[in-house]
Amino acid sequence: MATAPLRIGFLGFGVVGTGTYRMLVDNRESISRKVGAPLDVAKIGIRDPQKPREAPDALFTTDLEGIVDDPDIDMIIEVMGGVEPAGSLIERALRNGKHVVTANKELIAKRGGPLIRLAAANSLDLHFEAAVGGGIPLIQPLKHQLAGNDVLKLMGIVNGTTNYILTRMTEQRMSLEDALGEAQRLGYAEADPTADVDGHDAQCKLAILSGIAFGRETPVDCVYREGIRGLTADDIHFAGILGYRIKLLGIAEAIGPAVLARVHPTLLPKKHPLANVHDVYNAVQIRGDFVGDVIFSGRGAGSDPTGSAIVGDLIDVARNIRLGGAGNVIAPETGGQFLTIDSLVSRYYLRMRVDDKPRVLGQIASRLGEFDVSLTDMEMRVLDAAAGTGEIVFLTHECRESDFRQATEALDDTCGVREIATWLRVETREA
Amino acid sequence: MATAPLRIGFLGFGVVGTGTYRMLVDNRESISRKVGAPLDVAKIGIRDPQKPREAPDALFTTDLEGIVDDPDIDMIIEVMGGVEPAGSLIERALRNGKHVVTANKELIAKRGGPLIRLAAANSLDLHFEAAVGGGIPLIQPLKHQLAGNDVLKLMGIVNGTTNYILTRMTEQRMSLEDALGEAQRLGYAEADPTADVDGHDAQCKLAILSGIAFGRETPVDCVYREGIRGLTADDIHFAGILGYRIKLLGIAEAIGPAVLARVHPTLLPKKHPLANVHDVYNAVQIRGDFVGDVIFSGRGAGSDPTGSAIVGDLIDVARNIRLGGAGNVIAPETGGQFLTIDSLVSRYYLRMRVDDKPRVLGQIASRLGEFDVSLTDMEMRVLDAAAGTGEIVFLTHECRESDFRQATEALDDTCGVREIATWLRVETREA
Repeated sequence: MATAPLRIGFLGFGVVGTGTYRMLVDNRESISRKVGAPLDVAKIGIRDPQKPREAPDALFTTDLEGIVDDPDIDMIIEVMGGVEPAGSLIERALRNGKHVVTANKELIAKRGGPLIRLAAANSLDLHFEAAVGGGIPLIQPLKHQLAGNDVLKLMGIVNGTTNYILTRMTEQRMSLEDALGEAQRLGYAEADPTADVDGHDAQCKLAILSGIAFGRETPVDCVYREGIRGLTADDIHFAGILGYRIKLLGIAEAIGPAVLARVHPTLLPKKHPLANVHDVYNAVQIRGDFVGDVIFSGRGAGSDPTGSAIVGDLIDVARNIRLGGAGNVIAPETGGQFLTIDSLVSRYYLRMRVDDKPRVLGQIASRLGEFDVSLTDMEMRVLDAAAGTGEIVFLTHECRESDFRQATEALDDTCGVREIATWLRVETREA
Repeated sequence: MATAPLRIGFLGFGVVGTGTYRMLVDNRESISRKVGAPLDVAKIGIRDPQKPREAPDALFTTDLEGIVDDPDIDMIIEVMGGVEPAGSLIERALRNGKHVVTANKELIAKRGGPLIRLAAANSLDLHFEAAVGGGIPLIQPLKHQLAGNDVLKLMGIVNGTTNYILTRMTEQRMSLEDALGEAQRLGYAEADPTADVDGHDAQCKLAILSGIAFGRETPVDCVYREGIRGLTADDIHFAGILGYRIKLLGIAEAIGPAVLARVHPTLLPKKHPLANVHDVYNAVQIRGDFVGDVIFSGRGAGSDPTGSAIVGDLIDVARNIRLGGAGNVIAPETGGQFLTIDSLVSRYYLRMRVDDKPRVLGQIASRLGEFDVSLTDMEMRVLDAAAGTGEIVFLTHECRESDFRQATEALDDTCGVREIATWLRVETREA
């Protein structure tokens, strides 16, 4: 069933583009068999023609508009990253009748809705499996195999860089700075680590997953975000004593008709499957009303795994072009209702420096109790016997975040608290 | 975008059929929104009209041919199980132009090839996500998001009943008989547990996964099969001391141009992700040349998870009917090459009763060495000090199964071995 090749144009050719290209070349024969036609790379658009690249020179051009306007190109792979000019180029490609596959989480998180609707209106495919979780199938299984479920909650490790840093801090008792430095040397973290460390990357990914899982376009700024910068080796140590590991989680859940979506470091029981996802691995747990909990895990970044997701999308698009069915898109609805973090009900971890005196514990418990915050587990150690200061760590029962915040603000000298060092949210269910 | 409802006919209405029906009713509105049309259950075909059922009486009929011949029915859900009459009814439905979703692993494993080709020839969908792993997305992700990869290996826990039994044997030190009895009382095992305990169920599921992963129709009898019946609490205990858990795994891997597929109890390092999948949960690890290892886990059986997979398939079919693209099927090729278990290269676990005498260890090692089998880890205990017998457990280095089998046959009185109690295969890589 050999038919005419389908022609691909690349926008961008960095790490992910190179992995995608290599997969198309290395597995050309089996891909061609699955599609029913060869996939040919026709043009590769780049900005800097001087860099050495792993593809024939003749493919490269700096005329990116020329690629999205080229009538001989059927499909666009966008791997430039960033909102612009990627967004305008994709829009132009869609208006020109081209199918698009992108790995661009920031663009999809911030402008995915209009682009998806434009694709649907033109009976075109716009796929972005690679935008979340690298090579792990997540977005399409949510859209298809799990589509019969009302999703109740999803929770995942979606940033490999911070997971690597936390793993090293946990296993080697490294400081955040040292672990970050190591991640940078290994190429797992950027020179400017802000997007990863401060949770922006995870925030975009969670916005995308939430949009699909709950069928409601989730604006990035409706996702509460807190990174790992404030975490210390002490917190990881205390969490460990109490039976928990700390992970940077993206969590989105349906609460009545609304969605609460949040990214923050979280204490997870050591037996929880996500607590056992280490290094640069990603994993996402999805809870549906019928399927229960399913978990997807694997390498969440890197040229080859991300290339795998792009090529998977590309094969789907190519088969749709050949056999019909392109543009079979479910666009999330707009106008969803999102809760702020204040309305969260959670358990909390609280570490503070206190006066090491007999009645301090009772005073703290009483003060917190005034705000409906009650304590469960506790650990303490003496910091400075001479100065009479100690460090104390509590876990609380479930309470409202707004109450918890007020309660911590009320903890002061009068109840023997010198300083609140850290507080973190705790997930309690083990599976 | 409300359009005319799509009409569904059920063949069978047992546990899985009831879960599927309940999901279609409970989530009718969100499903209808995703499809762009309501999904209506038009008829339900059953064999015994006397049983009480969770659906309106008017839907039921014992005329199953009437359902697959009904020109008003668009899609068939087959949840009868067994090769016949399910196979003939599905074939007739496909010849009548109806799309089919089935949960029938035995049928797909044994006659899937011709049925898939018949569906493709008629531009119809034939989906069977529910046949393996209950609600866990596995088959479609292999066909789509992972399709760019050459799959190197897949390995999974695909039978929840035996995983429950092994979990109880491990955690409560129960005997196989007691754990099986408990599983039967809880409804996790059938009165006749042969299909689960002897590995037939896992064999069918692995044949299906192998066919899709390697693109080659995998005949069930090309999958080596060994159940858990021979396992004792002693083996689980010794495996634990050596750092392993025992799981019933289905494993299929590409070896040159051929595939070696096998189901048997396997020692897995305790840190391996699959070693930490307990109770009735299923999990499958897929290793692709680009994506690396991805793992999918969740509930592998039960009415609601399996219903979730069926409804996911149904939504895809329904969208294809509305928007085009049905029959976008990749049929595995026939004529693949399959290796027998003799050519396996593996590590092995070996437990035997021996004379508790000084030179026995050396004699055993020498005898095994004649067959290129060498030993690594060892544990032993005295069984009967008066009689001078002990029990000894070895792990071997990697060797060929044919060599290993010959070696164990050569272990006899002359080297101090009274009886070979058990031998099992060992997976060594941790991830």
